Amino acid sequence: MMWIGVSCGAQFLRIWVHGDGQTTALEAAASDPFEPALLSMIEPYLKTGAVVPVLVCGADRENHVAVPAPPLDAARAVRVHGGDLRIALYHLPGLSRQHPADLLYTRTLPVAGFIDAHPDWDGVLCLPDRHSKWVHISAGEVVSFQTFMSGEILSLLSEQSSLRTILAGQDWDGDAFDVAVSDAMSRPERVAGALFSLHAGSVLADQPAGVARARLSGMMIGMELAAARPYWLGQNLALIGSGALMGHYAAALEGQGVRAARCDVDEVTARGLQAAFTALRDSGA
Amino acid sequence: MMWIGVSCGAQFLRIWVHGDGQTTALEAAASDPFEPALLSMIEPYLKTGAVVPVLVCGADRENHVAVPAPPLDAARAVRVHGGDLRIALYHLPGLSRQHPADLLYTRTLPVAGFIDAHPDWDGVLCLPDRHSKWVHISAGEVVSFQTFMSGEILSLLSEQSSLRTILAGQDWDGDAFDVAVSDAMSRPERVAGALFSLHAGSVLADQPAGVARARLSGMMIGMELAAARPYWLGQNLALIGSGALMGHYAAALEGQGVRAARCDVDEVTARGLQAAFTALRDSGA
Repeated sequence: MMWIGVSCGAQFLRIWVHGDGQTTALEAAASDPFEPALLSMIEPYLKTGAVVPVLVCGADRENHVAVPAPPLDAARAVRVHGGDLRIALYHLPGLSRQHPADLLYTRTLPVAGFIDAHPDWDGVLCLPDRHSKWVHISAGEVVSFQTFMSGEILSLLSEQSSLRTILAGQDWDGDAFDVAVSDAMSRPERVAGALFSLHAGSVLADQPAGVARARLSGMMIGMELAAARPYWLGQNLALIGSGALMGHYAAALEGQGVRAARCDVDEVTARGLQAAFTALRDSGA
Repeated sequence: MMWIGVSCGAQFLRIWVHGDGQTTALEAAASDPFEPALLSMIEPYLKTGAVVPVLVCGADRENHVAVPAPPLDAARAVRVHGGDLRIALYHLPGLSRQHPADLLYTRTLPVAGFIDAHPDWDGVLCLPDRHSKWVHISAGEVVSFQTFMSGEILSLLSEQSSLRTILAGQDWDGDAFDVAVSDAMSRPERVAGALFSLHAGSVLADQPAGVARARLSGMMIGMELAAARPYWLGQNLALIGSGALMGHYAAALEGQGVRAARCDVDEVTARGLQAAFTALRDSGA
């Protein structure tokens, strides 16, 4: 049976078209509303005559389920009527927390996929990203979670701040990173001062860009680890992410004596959508 | 005698033309190099036939004097030859510090102006700005200083981040500010998490923009106060700034039981340039 899964993030619309025993992954820039962009992407696949179920996660920003709750609950999927008659659109709600106020939109998908793959696993998932998420799961439910904007602050500083010229390139000094993580964890309040010191250090001491980049990243991740300590200290921990950023979080955690399992975010995201679709289909919706 | 003073900052070129017993203040966007912009601004005033001394602070980013040192030392002004023959260009060097690496460019001017107005004053000057400076002065010299990028981070988050829509407008909730300052001072590591909570709070609890703005500002200033504690605790303190930002720093400090004198930054900047020009002229340069 053909069906389509969609993760509707703040930056990207990611689409998986399932049918004929194969899956096609598509990606577009996020837009508001998302439906026209989605339809133009999936148009070539809507030739079957049958109505195609489309599961969308992250687009409905009004409906949230308070934790503790399972990351995705097919019974709470909302069928949206109207629009293109070739598709049956279902919105999957996000998760919310009141104190402190927090929200989980599309990241419910990899969490659900991880739980589907490891049903007996209790512990904490860390999802490094522009907005990183720390998610405590137990008995198949999300017990608690917290979002940190460290990645977005890092991007803003790297790309749009007065520091951007001294941070250019891809070089990386691992020792400078370790020191910055450790400094930021013990004296997080010093970060705003240490940032300008990156600029002054490049003027006064020809500090290489790889040192400045690693120090900046180390400061941001170190501050986050200091605040997220209740999530990772003495916990069963898995990182869900990709590429260099996941490696930096793993290195920072190893510096604290914490070894985390690593898990590819695309794999578990697709698996989360699959689990939601299976549950929806089995419920007879 | 006609002369021109210039503060060459990262964002603005500010110019004071002195002559005929009056002063004209001009402003242009910063450019690199600064000379063409400067010349086009002062062109209408260069009609006297005499060579006009032009003192520039902040443009020479290669030469710095290590602290402790007076904020401006006319003996270290560098005459730059060549260029337009109607002016005599002098560069005033900045101040530097090695551990941690730090630099003071144009902000030497208000510090020098403050010292000129209060020659017997020992204590700390706080200059709130995009890059705020805390400057310890004693016996007419800068003993130590530190720069914080809190203001630039605040601008990036307010204007370019995913939070910008919930921060729009001018409303201000003073109580939310006080709480955020206090929270950030005691738990600075929580700031990156508290930022996302601003977003979630506006979605889940209709938090007004004035609360979000005040909380964001309070977090940034609170973190800075936590790190700058050695500068303000038990010290004679003066704020040099203008407008709402100086008021926010004053309120945050009052919350810590610290009362700071307030001083208009334009007034002491012009006075600093005047003091440097007088010293240069008296030295017979």
